[in-house]
Amino acid sequence: MILTRPILEINFENILENYQTLKKIAPKAQAAAVVKDNAYGLGADAVVRKLYNEGGCRNFFVAHGIEGEHIRSAAPEANIFVLQGIGDDSLKSFQNARLIPVISSPLMLEFWKAHRLPGIRPVINIETGLNRLGFRESDLARLSAEDKAEFGMMMSHLACGDEKGHFMNEHQLNNFIRLRNLYFPGLPASLSASDGTFLGADFQFDMVRLGAALYGINTAPYRENQMKNVVRLKAPVLQTADLPAGDFVGYSATYRATSSRRIAIVSIGYGDGIPRALSNVGKVFFPWRDELFEARIIGRISMDNIICDITEVPDVAVGETASLLDDFYTLDDMGRDSGTIGYEILTRLAQVRSV
Amino acid sequence: MILTRPILEINFENILENYQTLKKIAPKAQAAAVVKDNAYGLGADAVVRKLYNEGGCRNFFVAHGIEGEHIRSAAPEANIFVLQGIGDDSLKSFQNARLIPVISSPLMLEFWKAHRLPGIRPVINIETGLNRLGFRESDLARLSAEDKAEFGMMMSHLACGDEKGHFMNEHQLNNFIRLRNLYFPGLPASLSASDGTFLGADFQFDMVRLGAALYGINTAPYRENQMKNVVRLKAPVLQTADLPAGDFVGYSATYRATSSRRIAIVSIGYGDGIPRALSNVGKVFFPWRDELFEARIIGRISMDNIICDITEVPDVAVGETASLLDDFYTLDDMGRDSGTIGYEILTRLAQVRSV
Repeated sequence: MILTRPILEINFENILENYQTLKKIAPKAQAAAVVKDNAYGLGADAVVRKLYNEGGCRNFFVAHGIEGEHIRSAAPEANIFVLQGIGDDSLKSFQNARLIPVISSPLMLEFWKAHRLPGIRPVINIETGLNRLGFRESDLARLSAEDKAEFGMMMSHLACGDEKGHFMNEHQLNNFIRLRNLYFPGLPASLSASDGTFLGADFQFDMVRLGAALYGINTAPYRENQMKNVVRLKAPVLQTADLPAGDFVGYSATYRATSSRRIAIVSIGYGDGIPRALSNVGKVFFPWRDELFEARIIGRISMDNIICDITEVPDVAVGETASLLDDFYTLDDMGRDSGTIGYEILTRLAQVRSV
Repeated sequence: MILTRPILEINFENILENYQTLKKIAPKAQAAAVVKDNAYGLGADAVVRKLYNEGGCRNFFVAHGIEGEHIRSAAPEANIFVLQGIGDDSLKSFQNARLIPVISSPLMLEFWKAHRLPGIRPVINIETGLNRLGFRESDLARLSAEDKAEFGMMMSHLACGDEKGHFMNEHQLNNFIRLRNLYFPGLPASLSASDGTFLGADFQFDMVRLGAALYGINTAPYRENQMKNVVRLKAPVLQTADLPAGDFVGYSATYRATSSRRIAIVSIGYGDGIPRALSNVGKVFFPWRDELFEARIIGRISMDNIICDITEVPDVAVGETASLLDDFYTLDDMGRDSGTIGYEILTRLAQVRSV
């Protein structure tokens, strides 16, 4: 058997199970699914269908209006919230798909008031410490009673929700409660994404926005991951070869063999989303007969190929597949090894040419 | 005007012009266009149509059979070569679209002989020093005369073609010529991608495979770039705000303002392919009235947003767009600043949610 293409397996059952686990962790809050960035690279349509049809999920968050429009048919009766808000370039999507804007600035509120959608009450995003999008307190103080009555929910976003005990969490929580009491008493509220959900009931309010954890990322890294892995990425060995001592490998000849080695060329590269930063430091895996063999990546990763050292790995033949991501080496692991986070690895899986 | 989405502009005229410039640099060779990885992230269909219809290009290289099948309708009479070769998972594509496999190993040659396509003569890929895919000399020595007669072209690939004078270039060139004379005298030959094309006539043989340079990357970085920039990436300012001294910015609070600053939140992030490695080190640009203002990226880049310091930039308002990539800050520049190469930045542009 000769194979040439990478294989990305997405476990939708595990996404559903993660959703249900998270619901139990926040039993009093509504559990919204964050499916922005094409469900973080995994394909929004399929994720939304699964959670809508089998998980009963009725609240979804996307980043852009166009993303909301794309998922409307998969979730006909759901609330679809748009985090980057509404503007001239997305108004049509809001109208076509009855989307709910998250409004983060007084200017965007003016835009909303000029283009209100019947039956839709937007969300107001409030800045509590992240210093990203959101109404500052000075903006809130200038809102009229009519302005405040526009909104159906208030939200904010934590900066350090993945670090239990970080001073920013209490700081933002207190800010959020204070601003709610001052400006929006009684309005439904949402503070937390996946990470904040794990910080306990105080952080959960009326709605939690579940993104990264749905896809298996450990958003509470101070404890063992409670989420199931969702992603398996494999790629076929296209060729094996003997590498004589002294030979160079890959672009710019950054690796030189100090002894004779056996190498495999694996048909996947940074064009499939594998970070080039793993050149000469990452590894691929061969899970053979209950044993897990590691093969170090040698030389520079190229756009379509990875070269790895299989000297110590038995039985690697053309047609066998190497594992890049699996239960034993997760998005979080690859993120750490390439100097970033699992989230970025996840969104790059949209690049894999397996489909 | 309120805008919420990134804007990716691809200059197809410049791709065509780069193609024509490169043809002049290799006047005796056929100029093939490398459009693998969805034309390095820019969209293979549109690139192929442009080069086929207006550039007269009749030779295209893709990585995978499925990619070749996708572009067949855009280039009905062209030769479409598949670099990762032919296998059980791509045979249908070869049959449907009359693709030409690049065969890199004796095993793949056996597969070919069991599944020959009428009228198609494959390319043999020969290993000359990169130690990636290709027949080693020991493999060549075992080929029968009939085996050798299968092939319509031989190719190899340089490891250090972007470094003029690197010892590997002469080493690989000499290897290539020697192996050609020994095993495939007179067979049409292709050694060079864009970088090798710039190394001069000795490296150009019968066909050059033009990829990165078509898309504006400087594959001859020892001299000024002769290619035109092809990519402009912009994103709207969603919000501006005052940042008091002492405030933190972004996830994990990695930036703290030592004096009061003015910030802008720009609606693009690593979910659009901007490397998260640019957190706290990259910059965005505001080209105002013939002046170019830089705004440093502060805090961590998030999936959909970048926060930048606009204290020294006049007139930044909501609805204005910041430039991420342009003639004045290219793929190569962003590659360098994020610890990688322009090629990886380019392929990630497939993630931009502007379409």
